[in-house]
Amino acid sequence: MTEFTIRPAVEADAPVILELIRGLAEYERAPDQVVCDESRLRASLFGERPEAEVLLACIGDQAAGFAVFFHNYSTWLGGKGIYLEDLFVRPEARGKGIGKALLKAVAVIAKERQCGRMRWAVLDWNQPSIDFYRGLGAFALDEWTLYQLNREAIERLADSEG
Amino acid sequence: MTEFTIRPAVEADAPVILELIRGLAEYERAPDQVVCDESRLRASLFGERPEAEVLLACIGDQAAGFAVFFHNYSTWLGGKGIYLEDLFVRPEARGKGIGKALLKAVAVIAKERQCGRMRWAVLDWNQPSIDFYRGLGAFALDEWTLYQLNREAIERLADSEG
Repeated sequence: MTEFTIRPAVEADAPVILELIRGLAEYERAPDQVVCDESRLRASLFGERPEAEVLLACIGDQAAGFAVFFHNYSTWLGGKGIYLEDLFVRPEARGKGIGKALLKAVAVIAKERQCGRMRWAVLDWNQPSIDFYRGLGAFALDEWTLYQLNREAIERLADSEG
Repeated sequence: MTEFTIRPAVEADAPVILELIRGLAEYERAPDQVVCDESRLRASLFGERPEAEVLLACIGDQAAGFAVFFHNYSTWLGGKGIYLEDLFVRPEARGKGIGKALLKAVAVIAKERQCGRMRWAVLDWNQPSIDFYRGLGAFALDEWTLYQLNREAIERLADSEG
């Protein structure tokens, strides 16, 4: 069995984090959507006010996967939770339990910080992931659909009359 | 036309925020899901490290609606955005443009803080809201479904072997 370790990412990991972000975007069939570059990653994740946290799974000194998360908030619970933005294991490192170990590491943090829930979004065609998550006790918020405003629409609304 | 104002909520607003949370949960047909109480609200929203921000819309000194939001993060953009957790206008105060003004006020904040996107979740049967959001340039992330782990499942995963 391959040994791997999980640790919080540090700024020197920025290049490999960017590789993993791109690897996941390719898996999600949206490689063109990644406009992030290394300097943005350094500023947003390792600056004075980090905007998200990253856990890296490593085999030896090679990064094999990552989890990216931040805190969300529930008015129903009146407290914070964790939103898992990305969970990804490189194709060549799959089948070793790394994905589950990353998710478990996030759950340990959620428990320590007394988070009432964890959420994340899954692509509808990604049946292996759906089965994996359901096996851990996750359920789908089937009634809900996410909506998004991009930057242009935000600015149009912000600048609108009335 | 009824005049209204929009302002950031302060701790003294906690009771009315709780009323609005319950009002929205009733509209969403999930009133039993609200376990939040006033002391949790005060601690989570107005303590040393606020977990979300609240804008109140008021007619005179009466709160007519609210928006609750926090920052999310996009690895594709390499930067933060805004997640709108709640947007609600009391039934008796509708039709005056308060919902749009609240959403616009959040967009103004998103623009000021250079957020690359705004997201929120909408109930699939809530067609008036869907039409309203689409009219502002929002699009549905149709391919994605939200999954959730509740506290018990988080603890089970956190405490699991391996």
